[in-house]
Amino acid sequence: MKPVILLGSGGHARVLLDMLRRLNVKVLGIADPHRPIGSDYLGARILGDDAAILSYVADQIELVNGIGSLPRDVGLRSALFRQFRQQGFRFRTLIDPKAFTAADVELAEGVQAMVGTIIQAGAKIAENSIVNSGAIVEHDCSIGRHVHIAPGVVLSGGVEVGDNVHIGTGAMVIQGIRIGEGSVIGAGSIVTSDVACRQIVYPARSHRRDLE
Amino acid sequence: MKPVILLGSGGHARVLLDMLRRLNVKVLGIADPHRPIGSDYLGARILGDDAAILSYVADQIELVNGIGSLPRDVGLRSALFRQFRQQGFRFRTLIDPKAFTAADVELAEGVQAMVGTIIQAGAKIAENSIVNSGAIVEHDCSIGRHVHIAPGVVLSGGVEVGDNVHIGTGAMVIQGIRIGEGSVIGAGSIVTSDVACRQIVYPARSHRRDLE
Amino acid sequence: MKPVILLGSGGHARVLLDMLRRLNVKVLGIADPHRPIGSDYLGARILGDDAAILSYVADQIELVNGIGSLPRDVGLRSALFRQFRQQGFRFRTLIDPKAFTAADVELAEGVQAMVGTIIQAGAKIAENSIVNSGAIVEHDCSIGRHVHIAPGVVLSGGVEVGDNVHIGTGAMVIQGIRIGEGSVIGAGSIVTSDVACRQIVYPARSHRRDLE
Repeated sequence: MKPVILLGSGGHARVLLDMLRRLNVKVLGIADPHRPIGSDYLGARILGDDAAILSYVADQIELVNGIGSLPRDVGLRSALFRQFRQQGFRFRTLIDPKAFTAADVELAEGVQAMVGTIIQAGAKIAENSIVNSGAIVEHDCSIGRHVHIAPGVVLSGGVEVGDNVHIGTGAMVIQGIRIGEGSVIGAGSIVTSDVACRQIVYPARSHRRDLE
Repeated sequence: MKPVILLGSGGHARVLLDMLRRLNVKVLGIADPHRPIGSDYLGARILGDDAAILSYVADQIELVNGIGSLPRDVGLRSALFRQFRQQGFRFRTLIDPKAFTAADVELAEGVQAMVGTIIQAGAKIAENSIVNSGAIVEHDCSIGRHVHIAPGVVLSGGVEVGDNVHIGTGAMVIQGIRIGEGSVIGAGSIVTSDVACRQIVYPARSHRRDLE
Repeated sequence: MKPVILLGSGGHARVLLDMLRRLNVKVLGIADPHRPIGSDYLGARILGDDAAILSYVADQIELVNGIGSLPRDVGLRSALFRQFRQQGFRFRTLIDPKAFTAADVELAEGVQAMVGTIIQAGAKIAENSIVNSGAIVEHDCSIGRHVHIAPGVVLSGGVEVGDNVHIGTGAMVIQGIRIGEGSVIGAGSIVTSDVACRQIVYPARSHRRDLE
């Protein structure tokens, strides 16, 4: 098992660092231009910016994409993936020891299945996508590249999700739905009909008032 | 442990086949009238239609009901259960190795608790019901027969659910609620008051528009 | 490991009793003024009311707070915690064997992380709070004292929750939100902006009608 370099040191990177240690993966350090070179981040060493990675031989390490993504900002995560792939580096596919993946699922390069996720029989997930904590991807789902399935999301059987889609915290999608490329499914949305490309879905608003 | 025959070869059957293999249950084959006899489905043999089952001695095998159910179609799953019970066959009760069931829960014949489900202390589930991936059935719930609790559903403590109810993906039910026989709780619904028999509950609609 | 006394014998206590047995914790009995002294409750002995606890030496036992809390009633659970702490008793912090807690989380005295919960890297939870079945507390969340996070709730990264907050079944909170002290987040609510102190948040209503 090759040692890895983790890209980024924000919240998603922090969770990955915890996972990598539970998987006993050797972490050479963290590439992040925003922290001082040589400084410590949660016990890992800051190596510098992207250039620091290029000092390694591409086939002797693997990269872990620690950049998360927010609803309208999937750009940095996918750009880093493409850039380093072009430079000959590979991204580790990570399945948390406490994730469940059925025997026949297909997880492409750089997919990250976080703790408590359930990926059922026949599901396919393309490169660089995140299935975040406790999310469920039911049987026969097909998920594109650079997709973020946020914590607590449930995709029912046979859902198809295009590239660069963000599905927010706790959104629910019924069986057989198609969600087009580049769309954003807001946190808590309930999706019961197909979503075209580059649309945004909002849930019905919650209300609030003062307690007596 | 008796070998089993799986009824059906759709999405739910596919997930069960993965579970049966993880449980090291011997699968004699699949009964499904829609596929060619003798053909292969994911490594299992298609035995034919219902008549193929009758060539087995009833007390030497068990059946696994691989028919899922959609919101308004619980009929086939329950009909098969009744028919084969009348003919002397029994249905295997299945608890996924990655499901949690408290020590004192009562799961009747043919109940299927899928991966990641949580069934808390004092809960009772009647025959042929499905608790699907990641669903939570809290303490002291009482669930009827032929009920489908879809992925990601949460039933709080003491919820009572009648026979033939469908609770859709990610629906949430607060403590102590009663849901009458034959009702449908739509995906993502939030249930905070009792539901009579043969009602349908819809969540508030999500909205959508084009991204700029 | 010290033996424990469980306070209360309602639904939450029942779930804790199941957990304590799986953790092989010795349960001396249950303190509950509403059941006959010496009677049996699910195999545990009813010891009497609060006075029964005072007959034990405070540093030879630990207490387990079996009082749950409903949306507008967090009072009894927190009052018991404060009262027995003043009398020199300590409360056991409980992490279910089937909960996940990252290596660096901080769980204060009396926190209860129930089955299937996920508590990610950097999260901190103050004393006497409950993270109930299957709830997710993402990275860098900060949770106050006497908080109840109900089953199936998802708190995204960096959420801050004040003391005495109740977050109802299946509520979803997006990243970075602050929820003020004493507020109630109704079951199924979607929280996408900060909540002041002592507010109540309701989800959009579900609808219902008779099935044809």
